[in-house]
Amino acid sequence: MLKEALASGLAPRTLLTEEETPLAARFPEARLVTRGVLEAVCDTKTPQGMCAAFVLPATAGLENAPDILVALDGVQDPGNVGTIWRTADAAGFGGLLLGAGCADPYSPKVQRAAMGSGFRLPAIAAEPLAESLQTLRERGWKVFASALDGADFYARPEAGERFILVIGSEAHGISESVRAQADALVKLPMRGRAESLNAAVAAGIMMYEMMRGK
Amino acid sequence: MLKEALASGLAPRTLLTEEETPLAARFPEARLVTRGVLEAVCDTKTPQGMCAAFVLPATAGLENAPDILVALDGVQDPGNVGTIWRTADAAGFGGLLLGAGCADPYSPKVQRAAMGSGFRLPAIAAEPLAESLQTLRERGWKVFASALDGADFYARPEAGERFILVIGSEAHGISESVRAQADALVKLPMRGRAESLNAAVAAGIMMYEMMRGK
Repeated sequence: MLKEALASGLAPRTLLTEEETPLAARFPEARLVTRGVLEAVCDTKTPQGMCAAFVLPATAGLENAPDILVALDGVQDPGNVGTIWRTADAAGFGGLLLGAGCADPYSPKVQRAAMGSGFRLPAIAAEPLAESLQTLRERGWKVFASALDGADFYARPEAGERFILVIGSEAHGISESVRAQADALVKLPMRGRAESLNAAVAAGIMMYEMMRGK
Repeated sequence: MLKEALASGLAPRTLLTEEETPLAARFPEARLVTRGVLEAVCDTKTPQGMCAAFVLPATAGLENAPDILVALDGVQDPGNVGTIWRTADAAGFGGLLLGAGCADPYSPKVQRAAMGSGFRLPAIAAEPLAESLQTLRERGWKVFASALDGADFYARPEAGERFILVIGSEAHGISESVRAQADALVKLPMRGRAESLNAAVAAGIMMYEMMRGK
């Protein structure tokens, strides 16, 4: 992840490392530290041999929003947020919109689950999400929102060049204000007796399917 | 989950509950206990007000294997095993094959992630997995294995009525012996710069796609 952060163009700040490493030359500040220091600084139980601080990237704005976006409406679980970020990158989506109530995109758990995609794909703070969706719709984006009472995802209307897939919170789904901005409410078919899917799995299935043939 | 376990036909054994509940009549043994007892017995930090023991179901065998299966080859993360179980149920798969090195299917973490699907969809112990795959191939199943060097998943051969999708371990993918049993090695396209997908997300995308039109 550290090499991916460097490769992504993030500005390095400080490196803490147990052993000498050529990576140290890339940081304005680099210190040799003991394992105890790493354990105190990192939030993993058995930290790897180094950790680093980077300058937080400037938050991207709606002005330069990529054509194909996934929007998260209160997705709280950091693993879900990070996994959706990683899958969005692999599927060919251009970025994330983060509404209120989502896990902190720059928390370690989110970034670990994003597996480097958090350094590459922009996350746009979009609070309140409904207003951001409205702004983008006025500029030509189509909004598809995943909802348990939605129509068959596989029979959805044509997406066009610019669209947004909205994923709701694990417990409550999408909020009323976001629902009002949806061009289509969609739901994956449930063939067995399961009532719903994990948010990151549902997002992955839909994102890959929406990119078929693009 | 407790109600789903009862509804699934598992044999109830013991109920521990903080408050009186009509569910107690369904158990041969039911005890009112303090919160301290629940905290000692459960592995969650803040246990809900009751917990129960059921008789482990008899392990299903290959003789009665359902037509459409997902096989796990060393998937270690309990969250991934449970999430794949839940998604397999929703997608309309008939059961799981569990090879060596997978998380214990009856551990609490797996069952919580499976959200009740662990009570409904059979998990067949299939060790060594390669031998089980060979047995099923001789009886007409086609084996599709997910591998980073696989061919385009969307251009895969026709699956037919009976098939198995194999998902490899998070760290090492599928084992050599399992690879030798694959009729097709498949990989989802990676359009961005992500190198791989989370195992449960990849499984979900493939399972849903393989059930299109079935």
